[in-house]
Amino acid sequence: MKHARPLPGYLVKRFHGWKATTYSENAAWYRKLAEGQHPRAMIISCCDSRVHVTSIFGADQGEFFIHRNIANLVPPYQPDGHQHGTSAAIEYAVTALKVAHVVVMGHSSCGGVQGCLSMCSGQAPELEEKSSFVGRWMDILRPGYERVQHLKSEEEQRDALEKQAVIVSLENLMTFPFVAEAVEQGNLTLHGVWHDIGGGGLEEYQAESDRFNKI
Amino acid sequence: MKHARPLPGYLVKRFHGWKATTYSENAAWYRKLAEGQHPRAMIISCCDSRVHVTSIFGADQGEFFIHRNIANLVPPYQPDGHQHGTSAAIEYAVTALKVAHVVVMGHSSCGGVQGCLSMCSGQAPELEEKSSFVGRWMDILRPGYERVQHLKSEEEQRDALEKQAVIVSLENLMTFPFVAEAVEQGNLTLHGVWHDIGGGGLEEYQAESDRFNKI
Amino acid sequence: MKHARPLPGYLVKRFHGWKATTYSENAAWYRKLAEGQHPRAMIISCCDSRVHVTSIFGADQGEFFIHRNIANLVPPYQPDGHQHGTSAAIEYAVTALKVAHVVVMGHSSCGGVQGCLSMCSGQAPELEEKSSFVGRWMDILRPGYERVQHLKSEEEQRDALEKQAVIVSLENLMTFPFVAEAVEQGNLTLHGVWHDIGGGGLEEYQAESDRFNKI
Amino acid sequence: MKHARPLPGYLVKRFHGWKATTYSENAAWYRKLAEGQHPRAMIISCCDSRVHVTSIFGADQGEFFIHRNIANLVPPYQPDGHQHGTSAAIEYAVTALKVAHVVVMGHSSCGGVQGCLSMCSGQAPELEEKSSFVGRWMDILRPGYERVQHLKSEEEQRDALEKQAVIVSLENLMTFPFVAEAVEQGNLTLHGVWHDIGGGGLEEYQAESDRFNKI
Repeated sequence: MKHARPLPGYLVKRFHGWKATTYSENAAWYRKLAEGQHPRAMIISCCDSRVHVTSIFGADQGEFFIHRNIANLVPPYQPDGHQHGTSAAIEYAVTALKVAHVVVMGHSSCGGVQGCLSMCSGQAPELEEKSSFVGRWMDILRPGYERVQHLKSEEEQRDALEKQAVIVSLENLMTFPFVAEAVEQGNLTLHGVWHDIGGGGLEEYQAESDRFNKI
Repeated sequence: MKHARPLPGYLVKRFHGWKATTYSENAAWYRKLAEGQHPRAMIISCCDSRVHVTSIFGADQGEFFIHRNIANLVPPYQPDGHQHGTSAAIEYAVTALKVAHVVVMGHSSCGGVQGCLSMCSGQAPELEEKSSFVGRWMDILRPGYERVQHLKSEEEQRDALEKQAVIVSLENLMTFPFVAEAVEQGNLTLHGVWHDIGGGGLEEYQAESDRFNKI
Repeated sequence: MKHARPLPGYLVKRFHGWKATTYSENAAWYRKLAEGQHPRAMIISCCDSRVHVTSIFGADQGEFFIHRNIANLVPPYQPDGHQHGTSAAIEYAVTALKVAHVVVMGHSSCGGVQGCLSMCSGQAPELEEKSSFVGRWMDILRPGYERVQHLKSEEEQRDALEKQAVIVSLENLMTFPFVAEAVEQGNLTLHGVWHDIGGGGLEEYQAESDRFNKI
Repeated sequence: MKHARPLPGYLVKRFHGWKATTYSENAAWYRKLAEGQHPRAMIISCCDSRVHVTSIFGADQGEFFIHRNIANLVPPYQPDGHQHGTSAAIEYAVTALKVAHVVVMGHSSCGGVQGCLSMCSGQAPELEEKSSFVGRWMDILRPGYERVQHLKSEEEQRDALEKQAVIVSLENLMTFPFVAEAVEQGNLTLHGVWHDIGGGGLEEYQAESDRFNKI
């Protein structure tokens, strides 16, 4: 593979720094972890560089099995033999690792959600094209757009759509037979949260009120 | 969405701890980040709970756009109008965010790679089924298996296949026209690394020697 | 300008070495940076050849906006129409770049601080002269000398005065209306540290205790 | 000083990494350096986060006495008893440290130079105000603007003005009696270079041709 290049020097230096401190201080734990992982929860969050669930939830290595994709979306169950990276991650977490929780975390200023809004409101024809991976991926959120398009300002729509990205994903999670079964047998609980990057806030979806409330 | 449950108390407590400390100390930076992200690099790593690239590379919020999937795989370019979460993340990072680097990070004891090995060597018929999301996802790595099946022990094969997960992904990255174009124009460089969880090591793929060398 | 001379050969050679290695490996990132800088922090440190904040903090190009002057001093706000290089750097960082942090870094064996001590204790009359640029610059630190002159040994006084160079600068920073406003609105935080060159240590000023503590 | 806050955690971690690696491996040299600095050269460069002279010139700790200000400017000699941070740094480097070289390094995409251009061409009245530190600082470069204003496009003017920032500074350096004396006695040489951030280039001012040539 002739196109690979050496890592930037600052990353090499930082790695050596990590090795000599964090790794060195925790080597016993890392060696034990090498035998196998036993995460408590799966987290589905956005690729966005500003969202660090390990920091927000004070996680140690080995605690969370983390899948990150554009706009923290879960597609509906579709066992058609095609490649579904998100569904594979969920299947592995729930059936092989048997995690106790799946947390879907949305966030403010989400570029993917903004793209979906532009596309659904006819302002981004390039995202409608068959060849747009981002557009086709954001199709998952179209049912969410249906529920927020009545809102007056674009800002209100975007905020609501960021939260729909969490709700639609939770709904789609329940279409996976192995997820529904684990939930019904009490072996798995689902959680939805939305993170405000600038304000450092966290809101939690509450089933009874069908609302997000600050925690 | 009636199945959502409140977050476990320990996560709520840790969030409040983060809010009172890390967030509070960095609020100015997080507010600035809320205006937009300018990550330098995209990292593609595994969902595995033991792999923390932000820790290994001493990253601050805002530095890396991170996609995590099973076995850090990139599928080949396939603009068929279906949902491709990994391809969407790559498209967004390279064409919208214009990151300067894409780093694919593999790791030791990878459950996904082990599954691929079992499947390809006929020991896991359940992964061959159309309905297996993990199996179909690991199909991406079959070309890598072809290259390692001559090795004698299963251990050697697994180690080599973990590195093939990096190489095959780098090869597939170059099948995306916008990736190849950015690489050829000098606006993007690709990097492949493999992380030894227990030993805290990092090896880098070197194009000239077609080998991974310790850094 | 007839007095300019060619660069020493060893610098030319090192530049070519950098171009062929570090630049070559990071060209994509440097090209992106050429479009604009988005530094997170401003660092104010000494010109001293022994103080390298980019090394100490594992910084990549583009991370820190760095002003270096004798003894890392910030003068008080004085909008008198004269030339104030340090004030201009602070104004640009805070109002144009909108950095989230300003870090003032003092250090051990600081020649500027030693000069201030000699001058204030009457041992360096040449620094008292109107024509002494170093003397007039170190006048900024006279309020710091007032606070340490009660200490018995010259060594204690010098150590304390090096830390006063940090504290007085932080105090002066708050006299700039745009700094005070950004701090009060939570868009900027100020930090003071002192670096021990020989021992490789770092101490941080803590507001509650009014002391420097090792980190 | 009640406004100081703790350092961001990622900087603390990186410092500990540096301490355990770079410092640890060079402790003997750093301890020796603690006894005194003997830099070969003074470098005057911009605060811009994209300009790292230590990287470009492969510098070790202790090699360069570095002053960084907006647009790498040197004001004319003006011993009026006011505070002149740049003049103090030059005085200390030349008369106390007796450096053998002073290198003024300009660079591409310089925000300060762009501001000067806007101000001098009447497009930035806010920079004309007495209270603008950046404006008053950039007054130093007005003689350079006189020489480039005949150029037709703004782009040509900006490029030429970035180089004038080097030439004017070299000229002003020679107005300092102690600089002129050291130059005339052969104890100091002056050098002017301009760095192209995106392309990684370096051009050197040549006195004979009055031009910058690539090195």
